[in-house]
Amino acid sequence: SSSCLSMESHAGLAATPRALPYYVAFSQLLGLIAVATTGAWLGLYRGGIAWQGVLQFNVHPLCMVIGLIFLQGDALLVYRVFRNETKRTTKVLHGLLHVFAFIIALVGEFLGTHGWTLLSDPQWLVGFGFFLFPGASFSLRSRYRPQHIFFGATIFLLAVGTALLGLKEALLFKLGAKYSTFEPEGVLANMLGLLLAGFGVTVLYILTRADWKRPPQAEEQALSMDFKTLTEGDSPSSQ
Amino acid sequence: SSSCLSMESHAGLAATPRALPYYVAFSQLLGLIAVATTGAWLGLYRGGIAWQGVLQFNVHPLCMVIGLIFLQGDALLVYRVFRNETKRTTKVLHGLLHVFAFIIALVGEFLGTHGWTLLSDPQWLVGFGFFLFPGASFSLRSRYRPQHIFFGATIFLLAVGTALLGLKEALLFKLGAKYSTFEPEGVLANMLGLLLAGFGVTVLYILTRADWKRPPQAEEQALSMDFKTLTEGDSPSSQ
Repeated sequence: SSSCLSMESHAGLAATPRALPYYVAFSQLLGLIAVATTGAWLGLYRGGIAWQGVLQFNVHPLCMVIGLIFLQGDALLVYRVFRNETKRTTKVLHGLLHVFAFIIALVGEFLGTHGWTLLSDPQWLVGFGFFLFPGASFSLRSRYRPQHIFFGATIFLLAVGTALLGLKEALLFKLGAKYSTFEPEGVLANMLGLLLAGFGVTVLYILTRADWKRPPQAEEQALSMDFKTLTEGDSPSSQ
Repeated sequence: SSSCLSMESHAGLAATPRALPYYVAFSQLLGLIAVATTGAWLGLYRGGIAWQGVLQFNVHPLCMVIGLIFLQGDALLVYRVFRNETKRTTKVLHGLLHVFAFIIALVGEFLGTHGWTLLSDPQWLVGFGFFLFPGASFSLRSRYRPQHIFFGATIFLLAVGTALLGLKEALLFKLGAKYSTFEPEGVLANMLGLLLAGFGVTVLYILTRADWKRPPQAEEQALSMDFKTLTEGDSPSSQ
């Protein structure tokens, strides 16, 4: 009885996949420990942070880990976590988390830039544009949606990669040849690197599990009763 | 007329998506230029490679770029490129490319290890085990398949990330404070980093485009006429 019409069984309250909450909790644990470890690293080995003087450069790594990695990662997870809220509510939350991430990242960029905004600005503008103008044609949205998801995940991934490169640079500049001698700062910062990579992989795993995708709500199905789109799992409503 | 039965139209020779060959060609261009740039970097600024003496350590980055990145990336693309060959032929090619990648990576690992084999060995063993024992139940294979794909893509991605970290380490150890002064070696090696990241992103884009997945062949459909699995695009035969 599970045919291509099985979408119908999703209308109304759909059950949350059993393992999903554990994976989400694990990702949050990794993310929060990564933020705390960044604070510990800066506090213990870099003299803490301040808005003036040399210590202002320490604001940069902290802002990047909180904004570009933790909050941006959570913005991507919103569609997996909020499964029964309206699509509109979920989109607003996705947007809000990105606004917070963006503001914190801007503060951090100001103090040491990698040119990130160049990459993420178009993504932001087009995504926000479609949200503001719900009149944008359904087919236009559904063609843009996979691109938005791919480039969102890619930007997140590149952010994690850049953080690891920045961390290694900070370590090598200071430790030099002592990098290989298991200095306490090196051990802590490498643990931080593993935490960041682990957070990235866990978020991507949750995002890409086909059976963990957000089921379309009744209201959305009325809008998207296009068989091909539905059966290929690629409709804008099935995010 | 495109319903959930549209699979039928895939039986026999299916047309290749129009844009796919261009993306594949672009990925190969990036990959080959990355291999050549690695050679140029080692030849121009690191004294070339040799099996004895200090220069043997230069074998490591070359083997990693050829094996763990270029060949491993191409092994992932096999299912997108060979669309009309039998599943068995395509699997053998996927396995062969991984064997080549593995041998070259082993040579390279021998001269500077990141403990990669720890991660990729289980993936290798389980994947190869299922191939050797086609008697493994259909449902077991279909449950393992998404995990195999996710962890394969993740290992590939981590390989690219590790190459970028290794490259930065090699540069910072040698250039130190001169790293920020646009030394010719630094510029070349940073271009190499961008090429590697670009190859990684292009391969992942090709892999994740839902409409570029390999259509199931007639022989496979007979094995997997499970409607739910088919319509959710998650059957082992639709890779």
